[in-house]
Amino acid sequence: MAESDTGSDIVTAALLVIGEEILSGRTQDANIVHIAKALDQAGIALREVRVVPDIEDEIVEAVNAMRRRFRYVFTTGGIGPTHDDVTTDAIGRAFDVPVAEDPRAMRVFEERYPGEPVSPGRRRMARIPEGAELVANPISGAPGYMLENVIVMAGIPRIMQVMMEDVLPRLEKGRPVSTRTIRVDAPEGHVAGGLATLQAQHPKVQIGSYPFFEETGVGTYVVLRSADGPLIEAAVSELFALLIREDMPHNDEDEETS
Amino acid sequence: MAESDTGSDIVTAALLVIGEEILSGRTQDANIVHIAKALDQAGIALREVRVVPDIEDEIVEAVNAMRRRFRYVFTTGGIGPTHDDVTTDAIGRAFDVPVAEDPRAMRVFEERYPGEPVSPGRRRMARIPEGAELVANPISGAPGYMLENVIVMAGIPRIMQVMMEDVLPRLEKGRPVSTRTIRVDAPEGHVAGGLATLQAQHPKVQIGSYPFFEETGVGTYVVLRSADGPLIEAAVSELFALLIREDMPHNDEDEETS
Repeated sequence: MAESDTGSDIVTAALLVIGEEILSGRTQDANIVHIAKALDQAGIALREVRVVPDIEDEIVEAVNAMRRRFRYVFTTGGIGPTHDDVTTDAIGRAFDVPVAEDPRAMRVFEERYPGEPVSPGRRRMARIPEGAELVANPISGAPGYMLENVIVMAGIPRIMQVMMEDVLPRLEKGRPVSTRTIRVDAPEGHVAGGLATLQAQHPKVQIGSYPFFEETGVGTYVVLRSADGPLIEAAVSELFALLIREDMPHNDEDEETS
Repeated sequence: MAESDTGSDIVTAALLVIGEEILSGRTQDANIVHIAKALDQAGIALREVRVVPDIEDEIVEAVNAMRRRFRYVFTTGGIGPTHDDVTTDAIGRAFDVPVAEDPRAMRVFEERYPGEPVSPGRRRMARIPEGAELVANPISGAPGYMLENVIVMAGIPRIMQVMMEDVLPRLEKGRPVSTRTIRVDAPEGHVAGGLATLQAQHPKVQIGSYPFFEETGVGTYVVLRSADGPLIEAAVSELFALLIREDMPHNDEDEETS
């Protein structure tokens, strides 16, 4: 599998999950799979995920490594009102731009809570690095933002999800990748040789192999992915021929164009 | 929160999840939370997680970056029998050691399937980088291994879990970190100022703040962590005093020593 396997015009992305609670095992992350699916459907290829603690230096280092390498970098977590929310200061440092109370963000809170002075916690959440565009948060107000190619979102899953919805239309998209999944009722080892040959013959189709274990036996999901649908069909036909020749029971699990 | 906050004698670790299926959103990762908890209980601090695709160059780069920085690096995925299982070759390249069929691993298969010649798929899974110690896999045979400070495990959760059990006793441990979780029935913004002061006064206790949203209202979990139990107790007492003074309803959610 090479970087270019699923087709040309690839728009790449990386995700930086910021949160001690994931690293300590306190929380089961729910954001990675959501963002991975949303990007896949949008034709953006998620190429790397990192999880780091709420430590400013580590966030700065990760953001700078990732933003140079990928078209987009998404971050989740660390933009709340408390002392351990250090993402925004880290982003300011990573880009070497000042961070200050943003009039647009302040207006969000003023309109949401009319007649109230904006509380210190909300003022902290209105601090935005200079040059960023806001990302709307219709659920609780406090916005995310996009600075150059870095999109900074909340860690709370349902807030992160509405932020993704707000920001996705602004992003450059690649060709969406189509996926075919074939279920083979034989262990991975039995299909390994055939799949290796198939992959070599179809360099533009990414062929993945995932074992499964059920009460009735073991088997293999073969997942074929490409931005070029006809190439997948050609590879699937050859896979079926191979499975029939080797007498391996199989069926077409699903057909999805994501 | 600084690197040394939860106490001295910290043994650090990183996790490298290898798998296109996580990045495409096909699979919800289940390994990160399991490994994070197991390490936390063992007194090993998980400091970073990365997810990369099944691309040899990317695995080599990540392993080399992580193994120099952390006491241990765990990897999951990519050690099966198919063409997209490239972890072992990547580990060999990262350490610049040869990879060959390992007599110990071959013996595992020979004893498991007596009288049968070892199949090509199993022979592929018996390829181990030179100098590695095996990690047992009582479920399906094919072993993981530990090379210097890098522990290579399967991606299938129940196999990864038995491999963790096998390898953990061999590892250096730090002082286990104790955790106290206090539930406060007030939004994060209301406790933010007090928590910042508390954190400044208790640099050896890591104080995290996690909002929650329930039908009955919003609130905050305050999580205090330290390898030094009495330090946590002192910080918790001050937190309670603060919450009572500010009239914020709260209760001691749990007391766990992990």
